[in-house]
Amino acid sequence: MSATLDGYTSFKHFLISSPAEYVAHVEINRPEKLNAFFEDMWLEMGQVFAKLSHDPNVRAVVFSGAGDRAFSSGLDVQAASQGGVLSPAGTSDGSRFATRARRHIYEFQDSISAIEKCEKPVIVVLHGISIGLAIDMSCCADIRICSKDTRFSVKEVDIGLAADIGTLSRLPKIIGNHSWVKEVCLSARFFDADEALSVGFVSRVLENKVKAIEAATTLAVLIASKSPVAVQGTKEILNHSRENSVADSLRYTAVWNSAMLQSSDLSAAMLSGIKKTKPRFEKL
Amino acid sequence: MSATLDGYTSFKHFLISSPAEYVAHVEINRPEKLNAFFEDMWLEMGQVFAKLSHDPNVRAVVFSGAGDRAFSSGLDVQAASQGGVLSPAGTSDGSRFATRARRHIYEFQDSISAIEKCEKPVIVVLHGISIGLAIDMSCCADIRICSKDTRFSVKEVDIGLAADIGTLSRLPKIIGNHSWVKEVCLSARFFDADEALSVGFVSRVLENKVKAIEAATTLAVLIASKSPVAVQGTKEILNHSRENSVADSLRYTAVWNSAMLQSSDLSAAMLSGIKKTKPRFEKL
Amino acid sequence: MSATLDGYTSFKHFLISSPAEYVAHVEINRPEKLNAFFEDMWLEMGQVFAKLSHDPNVRAVVFSGAGDRAFSSGLDVQAASQGGVLSPAGTSDGSRFATRARRHIYEFQDSISAIEKCEKPVIVVLHGISIGLAIDMSCCADIRICSKDTRFSVKEVDIGLAADIGTLSRLPKIIGNHSWVKEVCLSARFFDADEALSVGFVSRVLENKVKAIEAATTLAVLIASKSPVAVQGTKEILNHSRENSVADSLRYTAVWNSAMLQSSDLSAAMLSGIKKTKPRFEKL
Amino acid sequence: MSATLDGYTSFKHFLISSPAEYVAHVEINRPEKLNAFFEDMWLEMGQVFAKLSHDPNVRAVVFSGAGDRAFSSGLDVQAASQGGVLSPAGTSDGSRFATRARRHIYEFQDSISAIEKCEKPVIVVLHGISIGLAIDMSCCADIRICSKDTRFSVKEVDIGLAADIGTLSRLPKIIGNHSWVKEVCLSARFFDADEALSVGFVSRVLENKVKAIEAATTLAVLIASKSPVAVQGTKEILNHSRENSVADSLRYTAVWNSAMLQSSDLSAAMLSGIKKTKPRFEKL
Amino acid sequence: MSATLDGYTSFKHFLISSPAEYVAHVEINRPEKLNAFFEDMWLEMGQVFAKLSHDPNVRAVVFSGAGDRAFSSGLDVQAASQGGVLSPAGTSDGSRFATRARRHIYEFQDSISAIEKCEKPVIVVLHGISIGLAIDMSCCADIRICSKDTRFSVKEVDIGLAADIGTLSRLPKIIGNHSWVKEVCLSARFFDADEALSVGFVSRVLENKVKAIEAATTLAVLIASKSPVAVQGTKEILNHSRENSVADSLRYTAVWNSAMLQSSDLSAAMLSGIKKTKPRFEKL
Amino acid sequence: MSATLDGYTSFKHFLISSPAEYVAHVEINRPEKLNAFFEDMWLEMGQVFAKLSHDPNVRAVVFSGAGDRAFSSGLDVQAASQGGVLSPAGTSDGSRFATRARRHIYEFQDSISAIEKCEKPVIVVLHGISIGLAIDMSCCADIRICSKDTRFSVKEVDIGLAADIGTLSRLPKIIGNHSWVKEVCLSARFFDADEALSVGFVSRVLENKVKAIEAATTLAVLIASKSPVAVQGTKEILNHSRENSVADSLRYTAVWNSAMLQSSDLSAAMLSGIKKTKPRFEKL
Repeated sequence: MSATLDGYTSFKHFLISSPAEYVAHVEINRPEKLNAFFEDMWLEMGQVFAKLSHDPNVRAVVFSGAGDRAFSSGLDVQAASQGGVLSPAGTSDGSRFATRARRHIYEFQDSISAIEKCEKPVIVVLHGISIGLAIDMSCCADIRICSKDTRFSVKEVDIGLAADIGTLSRLPKIIGNHSWVKEVCLSARFFDADEALSVGFVSRVLENKVKAIEAATTLAVLIASKSPVAVQGTKEILNHSRENSVADSLRYTAVWNSAMLQSSDLSAAMLSGIKKTKPRFEKL
Repeated sequence: MSATLDGYTSFKHFLISSPAEYVAHVEINRPEKLNAFFEDMWLEMGQVFAKLSHDPNVRAVVFSGAGDRAFSSGLDVQAASQGGVLSPAGTSDGSRFATRARRHIYEFQDSISAIEKCEKPVIVVLHGISIGLAIDMSCCADIRICSKDTRFSVKEVDIGLAADIGTLSRLPKIIGNHSWVKEVCLSARFFDADEALSVGFVSRVLENKVKAIEAATTLAVLIASKSPVAVQGTKEILNHSRENSVADSLRYTAVWNSAMLQSSDLSAAMLSGIKKTKPRFEKL
Repeated sequence: MSATLDGYTSFKHFLISSPAEYVAHVEINRPEKLNAFFEDMWLEMGQVFAKLSHDPNVRAVVFSGAGDRAFSSGLDVQAASQGGVLSPAGTSDGSRFATRARRHIYEFQDSISAIEKCEKPVIVVLHGISIGLAIDMSCCADIRICSKDTRFSVKEVDIGLAADIGTLSRLPKIIGNHSWVKEVCLSARFFDADEALSVGFVSRVLENKVKAIEAATTLAVLIASKSPVAVQGTKEILNHSRENSVADSLRYTAVWNSAMLQSSDLSAAMLSGIKKTKPRFEKL
Repeated sequence: MSATLDGYTSFKHFLISSPAEYVAHVEINRPEKLNAFFEDMWLEMGQVFAKLSHDPNVRAVVFSGAGDRAFSSGLDVQAASQGGVLSPAGTSDGSRFATRARRHIYEFQDSISAIEKCEKPVIVVLHGISIGLAIDMSCCADIRICSKDTRFSVKEVDIGLAADIGTLSRLPKIIGNHSWVKEVCLSARFFDADEALSVGFVSRVLENKVKAIEAATTLAVLIASKSPVAVQGTKEILNHSRENSVADSLRYTAVWNSAMLQSSDLSAAMLSGIKKTKPRFEKL
Repeated sequence: MSATLDGYTSFKHFLISSPAEYVAHVEINRPEKLNAFFEDMWLEMGQVFAKLSHDPNVRAVVFSGAGDRAFSSGLDVQAASQGGVLSPAGTSDGSRFATRARRHIYEFQDSISAIEKCEKPVIVVLHGISIGLAIDMSCCADIRICSKDTRFSVKEVDIGLAADIGTLSRLPKIIGNHSWVKEVCLSARFFDADEALSVGFVSRVLENKVKAIEAATTLAVLIASKSPVAVQGTKEILNHSRENSVADSLRYTAVWNSAMLQSSDLSAAMLSGIKKTKPRFEKL
Repeated sequence: MSATLDGYTSFKHFLISSPAEYVAHVEINRPEKLNAFFEDMWLEMGQVFAKLSHDPNVRAVVFSGAGDRAFSSGLDVQAASQGGVLSPAGTSDGSRFATRARRHIYEFQDSISAIEKCEKPVIVVLHGISIGLAIDMSCCADIRICSKDTRFSVKEVDIGLAADIGTLSRLPKIIGNHSWVKEVCLSARFFDADEALSVGFVSRVLENKVKAIEAATTLAVLIASKSPVAVQGTKEILNHSRENSVADSLRYTAVWNSAMLQSSDLSAAMLSGIKKTKPRFEKL
């Protein structure tokens, strides 16, 4: 039903469609393996979101997993331990092992951070199994929605390591309840949709995956109907303020808007507000 | 019923009264225009809160809007686009437009930040329409209470711009649920009192505006009955810690208290605790 | 029932036992005075947690108060005002008073911060009266659990001072609802277990103290069954990310894991995951 | 010889003239008292620099002291101890003394910081006695030049206090040699022009005051001949980068220039570069 | 004389050779245009340094310009204004111009920052004309050496803009004398090798370009003879400490070395110290 | 000639005397081994400076090495590799090695940082061999003086590791010339007193050790004659400002002085200034 989105057909591990004007839908496409990730996949994912970031035809992104069973079961541990990120092979020297591991981790982190760096809002829809890397990726999204059947876990301690692709860096910043954050990160226990809602990890729970995708798309369509100058500035400033003092953030905002107020979007938005018409905004 | 507060009669756009000893009540006084703001108003508001900040007769502030329909409908967009902050006129050079816009925004931000900088706790009572600038102002208050009929919206994207007077700088710091913060800021959708309570934007919802003002006043009276040295130090340190590391905050607190423990308030407070009497604290 | 833990018998004010392998239980042991603290006690507490931090036989800590009436009623104000921290005696010179007060406060803060610096996760169980210093200490714990009868208060303004041992530095960082944080800190009002749960100060409420201790111990046992390399890294990185930008936190995480991935725990954890056996991890 | 500058005649303690187009010269005008400062003077100075900051007729500022004997001998200690900043009178309560002192110091600091916040470059010319507050003010200037006879001292420890108006906050950031910074701040010893040059406190020493003023004016004229968009952006970004990470500074710079590149100054500057003519830039 | 370095022959705008084991020499290769840069060149430069960063055959890098007349005359302004970075064409909407400009600047900055991010020490040799972008690039290098004939200028204000590729972000951090930094950045005046040495912009001046290259190569050979684990860790930690508090830097250093002390380089280095032999270190 | 200082006789590795009232002289006392350090020594040094920090009889500290040949040759590498800090023995698991190494390094860093944390100014006198740990310690001192024969080296890369006890964290903050900092840290080359002076690592060079000690003592006597409230506040604020923004530093300074201006030292200092007498200040 969704239209294809021009320029994304060469990607192998992700389905990219356009369910509505200015809205992109990215699906992790390895359902037979519960959308588990290996190195090629995350490198490609970084490229997908970098492309969406500058694509003038995209103003909001929905991100989900293909298939019914899982958003993602996280890292494909088998692949990772066979010559992958968990086994920088061929050295017995601790410092050289560490150097290669560090480079691997940076590259991996960069691919995932591309979701956060994407200039357009990203709405992630979690469903089914959503563990490990699934949490790292969700923390990079702007808005988190899930279906009732989602089974979440910050799973990394169960494979003997501290999560290093972003969950531990972002979760304490996007959720207020640190007692809960520590509890789920230290115990690797599962939690369900209701618990995720009550602590504010997701802002909405829908009956099932289909409804969740619908809700996300509706929200994406709403956001995409607004001025892209306003929307993208809002995302940028919210992310900036998360990590800077109020004084620094106010200053950055003023400098940002000193350029961005020079926009035809203001008069277009105001006029359509008065005339009760749908505004059209120039591409960005 | 409220007594007048000495020294505030010259203000034009705000009603300032004293419902109880050491408590001030500030009302935005343009109900016929839903308490919408134009430049003169916010400049005056900055002066009101600067004066309250150092006024020894004030130990807690209640802040609300006059009239039944709105706490505030935000910026008076019509005024703003006619020679106001949204139209720094008389230049076609982008860099010169930007320079004037930046100076305008700084001045506007400073006026609103005066609420946060006020040394005395500020309890804001939201009611009716509370959008745009209403949110910017509320984020500067220490405590947020609202009536059941409040209709909130971070409205700025609907007029084609990213909010630049403080909402985007403060909201992610005062609410834990970032998925929700992003949702309401990016979509400009309305939310009601119950939603505001559930995500922690307000800490209490009352039946109607009258009851909300009552509750805020009762809380203000309680706070005003405590040692002003203790109360104002608590506000200062909480705001400082919001933006500094725990180590820096602990150090700042120790230096702060090394002066403030030299206070007659300690013995007064302890004595009244033992004697079950109401303590009297020297003016501050 | 609990076994003793080797090496902790010389402590006077705290009971330290081991309810399960790799789990320590620390009890404040002054129940006849509602577990109120005087200087000797907090200095000793700093030593207890410093020792637990490096003890290879400990992988998780439960922290509670002895007796049924109180986790802790906070500072023993009587002791403090008789030659204690609230009365740095023997000087009328303000700057010299301040210098001694500052040194006192730093020493006190350091003792309490030892809970946070402990490399092993600390689960605090609050019960009964839990005010003043009880809140400072709880904020340093990783996970907060309480019994239904807990009566909380950030009590310091009632004795005429701004809390300076950590509550004001940590509370705004571990709870999302700042309106509520300000309300309870500025008013010193009591709040109960349900309110504590709803704002996310605790992540679980149990029927009574016995059940709360049981729940905490069960959770501690679960955490202690995981790789200590993974668990302690997770605590460290979560605390680091709370106060650093995402970019800095990601970098720190990568450097941390470049060393910590060189662990036999990974293969042990993965193997036991496949074989469905309980892994054994080398001491740390 | 200097022309007067429109709009500055009402200032009492400062002479403001215009030695060349777009250049302002501010002189501290209390030579009979070695240009020592009392409260009225620094409040006025704050206003002078705030006005220069937005004055489109000013693109560079020279700042010096009237008379031959002193740039400034600093705080008028006699005035300060008679009801001034060093004696917040009328209280014996340490915490209330501290509160008033703090407010005094903030106000004083703000007046001096106006030199730094002035959007136009400020070149200070030091000469003769230049101690205490003279150093605080100089540290706020962008460029420091002096005459051979200048006698400098960070004098505050000699009156029993740590300098609190800015020297200790800025000196370690504008000079690389911290061993020297500590030496002069802790000992209050005098240093001369050659020493100031060798450690980089001043970037030039001239034969006498007349020549130093000439050199400063020549440099101001040169700077004033450049694009004000380029010059003021350069000052802003250099000050920003002094206190932010390289990554934050690069980001801020890009956002700044995204607005400021939309300037007719670029083509004007380039054209005049090619044609070897003097460019004219629109007012800013 | 220099050997070629495997894997770098496909680069078009840079000559990359190996004057000694483990030493790479990168030369900007557009001498006929004074090594001025256009977009293709800086993108390629980013790739060159990214490759050197991970190349196990490289332990130190010398960076210079081909030809006798210039290290680099900076941005090729003609190219930049014809469809290049200074003219994001095809839009009259200020906010859209700004968006494209911002993306351009980020990409440009990233290419230059690759010099700083290169894990191996980079020694830049400045000679002849070295202005604009030449300064941006030099600030990214670890060590700056120049020949007597070098003519430096932070030239950007002369073309009507604030330097935005890194000079203003880095210069105040690598030189102590801020009065001088402001002077040269605000005036765009030229300065020579002696002045550069006296303010610490370069740490050595050689008679001519040949001697400067020799000196740089000798230093690179010396550095390349040391343990690469020690050298690369030293660069990383020095860059980290430049922008973090001492406490954070000490912590980062400890975590870094907890991995890097697990190196055969320690015993190799110590043994060769005792035996007075030249140590051999494993590739990194 | 120097008097003994009460309370320091139990220290084994350091000679502590009092050459003048309120001045302490600390000498590293292992001249037969060039004052090289093993673990017991640095732990004791931490205790020495912690004690001096709060000792009311000490207002300034001179720090040097006993004997003529060396201030210190740094870490006793032989001791360190035989069961010391460089060989956390008894584990082949990389993550467990790392954990022990990290704890070792923190403890070592803390001992050295005690010099910086000492509330009294510390003047270090370098002489003869001054390498490795000698530089780490000197960077913690406030003022650095040396004799002509000093031979400096940041020696760590020569033993295969990045310096991790503080040199790399502090050197870029106390010296402006980063090109030189990188050069000496990456090459481990020696530099002499004149070079140290020219880059600002030391602020004075004296003919020989005796003269250097004399000069340091004279400076210490001068500093000790000033108000200890003023001197210790100056040290504290300078160290704070080194790592905080100007705005944060100004705020911290105001809060600090709000307590410290309540000092009898102000009137004592002013009076003695008028009467030309030597002031006496109460102990601190």
